[in-house]
Amino acid sequence: MTTLSASPAPLDPAAIRTTVETQLYDFLDEQEQAAPDLPELTLFTGLLRDFLTAGGKRIRPLLCVTGWYAITDRPPPPVLWRAAASLEMFHAFALIHDDIMDNSDTRHGHPTAHRALATRHTGRPDAESVGTNTAMLLGDLAMGWSYEFLHSPDITPAQLKVVWPLLNALRTETLVGQYLDLAATGTPTADPEIAWRIIRYKTAKYTVERPLLLGAALAGATGRQLQALSGYALPLGEAFQLRDDLLGVYGDPELTGKSVLDDLREGKQTVLVAMALARASATQQRTLRSRFGNPNLTDTHAAEIRAVLAATGARAATERLISDKYDEAIDALDAADLLPVCSAWLRHFAHTITSRTA
Amino acid sequence: MTTLSASPAPLDPAAIRTTVETQLYDFLDEQEQAAPDLPELTLFTGLLRDFLTAGGKRIRPLLCVTGWYAITDRPPPPVLWRAAASLEMFHAFALIHDDIMDNSDTRHGHPTAHRALATRHTGRPDAESVGTNTAMLLGDLAMGWSYEFLHSPDITPAQLKVVWPLLNALRTETLVGQYLDLAATGTPTADPEIAWRIIRYKTAKYTVERPLLLGAALAGATGRQLQALSGYALPLGEAFQLRDDLLGVYGDPELTGKSVLDDLREGKQTVLVAMALARASATQQRTLRSRFGNPNLTDTHAAEIRAVLAATGARAATERLISDKYDEAIDALDAADLLPVCSAWLRHFAHTITSRTA
Repeated sequence: MTTLSASPAPLDPAAIRTTVETQLYDFLDEQEQAAPDLPELTLFTGLLRDFLTAGGKRIRPLLCVTGWYAITDRPPPPVLWRAAASLEMFHAFALIHDDIMDNSDTRHGHPTAHRALATRHTGRPDAESVGTNTAMLLGDLAMGWSYEFLHSPDITPAQLKVVWPLLNALRTETLVGQYLDLAATGTPTADPEIAWRIIRYKTAKYTVERPLLLGAALAGATGRQLQALSGYALPLGEAFQLRDDLLGVYGDPELTGKSVLDDLREGKQTVLVAMALARASATQQRTLRSRFGNPNLTDTHAAEIRAVLAATGARAATERLISDKYDEAIDALDAADLLPVCSAWLRHFAHTITSRTA
Repeated sequence: MTTLSASPAPLDPAAIRTTVETQLYDFLDEQEQAAPDLPELTLFTGLLRDFLTAGGKRIRPLLCVTGWYAITDRPPPPVLWRAAASLEMFHAFALIHDDIMDNSDTRHGHPTAHRALATRHTGRPDAESVGTNTAMLLGDLAMGWSYEFLHSPDITPAQLKVVWPLLNALRTETLVGQYLDLAATGTPTADPEIAWRIIRYKTAKYTVERPLLLGAALAGATGRQLQALSGYALPLGEAFQLRDDLLGVYGDPELTGKSVLDDLREGKQTVLVAMALARASATQQRTLRSRFGNPNLTDTHAAEIRAVLAATGARAATERLISDKYDEAIDALDAADLLPVCSAWLRHFAHTITSRTA
């Protein structure tokens, strides 16, 4: 994502990330200072600092600030920065709980929170469950704090009225999207409908649409402007996830930082796999169904799956879908009444995000 | 707790519970109506309805409404009822996640959320983890909704300024209290300090002090009035938990609805056990340390522990502590400048809660 820093001012992603990170670290300091009787709190604030420092593209805060600049060229007030940071804190919650649910060992090249916490209790017979339970509490704290961020002295009743329903929808959609994902994982189907719904709620709305709308709404966007931003955000968010699914199977682990076996071992429900299943011959079906979702899947098995994804045309069809969704997003942008500097940046962002290799 | 309904109007606990429950069920209906594209949401709203219907004394909403009436005889506005319901929704979150952490099978005589959800997936090899993960999401939704409850059209900026820090403190204290509890469980110590801290954060502040202060603060209480209410709430909350600990070992399962072996099997860190360990002879120490926290503990083992708790005087000392804490709470009430009708009710409540058998 480093190419983003070449984008036009005032949308300087590096500067936006720094401002948001300062908000996050300052907030954690304040939480510690507000609870001098609870020295154990520093275990949690420390873990969150480590988690945030370890990585993350800050896409949601970036889009929140972009949403503001889509509507106005006034500099964003403190409440906008707090809302942007709130999204990143919520994301920390979501990832910490997701990692528990997926039983993941690493995140951003570091041990996941529950693994790191289990290690702290090595020697206790229940070290693993103490680690998992403490990580659940860590996620719970992060979620609570994501709302506490909105306790900004300069937030107006009108802004609150706009922010609350958006954040409520974002949370409900994301958590139900996560449920759809975990209920579908492991039982692949040729019907892409469920994969599309997971993409819509777990990624397109959560990662792109809601953050953009949050910033725009705080800037006083009209209903028409919000609709235009949704018209851009939803197809772009879909393209983003389709790219992610391809990277999960074909990516360079050196660049993505994740194995190309995990999604296949887990049996992740994707449009890519659904399309392959729909187009596969009986033999190809057998290959997919016997390999996909097998926790002991080897590199050889993965190569067999990749061969079927190519031979059925599912890989090429996914690339075409990304391209179509990208076009759809750009068309919506062209028709929208947004500030030109922001339109240019959103165009640039759409290109970067759909053609990325990491 | 049925005796509470004999208390003076306008503090009619039965009526308060009904109003709060109506708020909760109406809220869940609204969430479903707001997300017609997400039919899967009804799985979660349905589970929460079942969870709330299965039981619960609604102590926190009751104390929140009481806090209001401690300060004013005006009828509570909608925001007060929403704040009271918010506490119960937060409590649903806390119990659902606690039950996962404690690996509990039942709650209020029904299967816990993660067990009920695992049963829905019977036949899947990963039924248990799908059940646990879905229950985590259910808890996450309930926590988020507990804040959404405060999105009340009639809440003023001044009230928000009062409510946010209180709810932030309540959440941090409760979650860190839960951490103290899970980190200490299974390794009993003769030092009662850690048990007192768990009581303070996980019960006294969470169950009594913060709910009372929330209602009072919304009614516009002065700092002096809030301090007086804390002076009542903290010792009463401590006495409440000490009684709970005694009921966990000596209670009548017919009345309490829970086994008298669970706390002992789990190795729950209590003031009762810490005092016994501090006073025990070498032989008594051996009995306690070999039986306490043993997951296979039998009725005979439990009887041996009870004999040590009695012989060391720990049981009697705990009863004395309850009595002292009760007196301390009543003294604080006498010195406080609260509306008489409310003082009378709080006196009645303190008696009921410390002498309860269920």
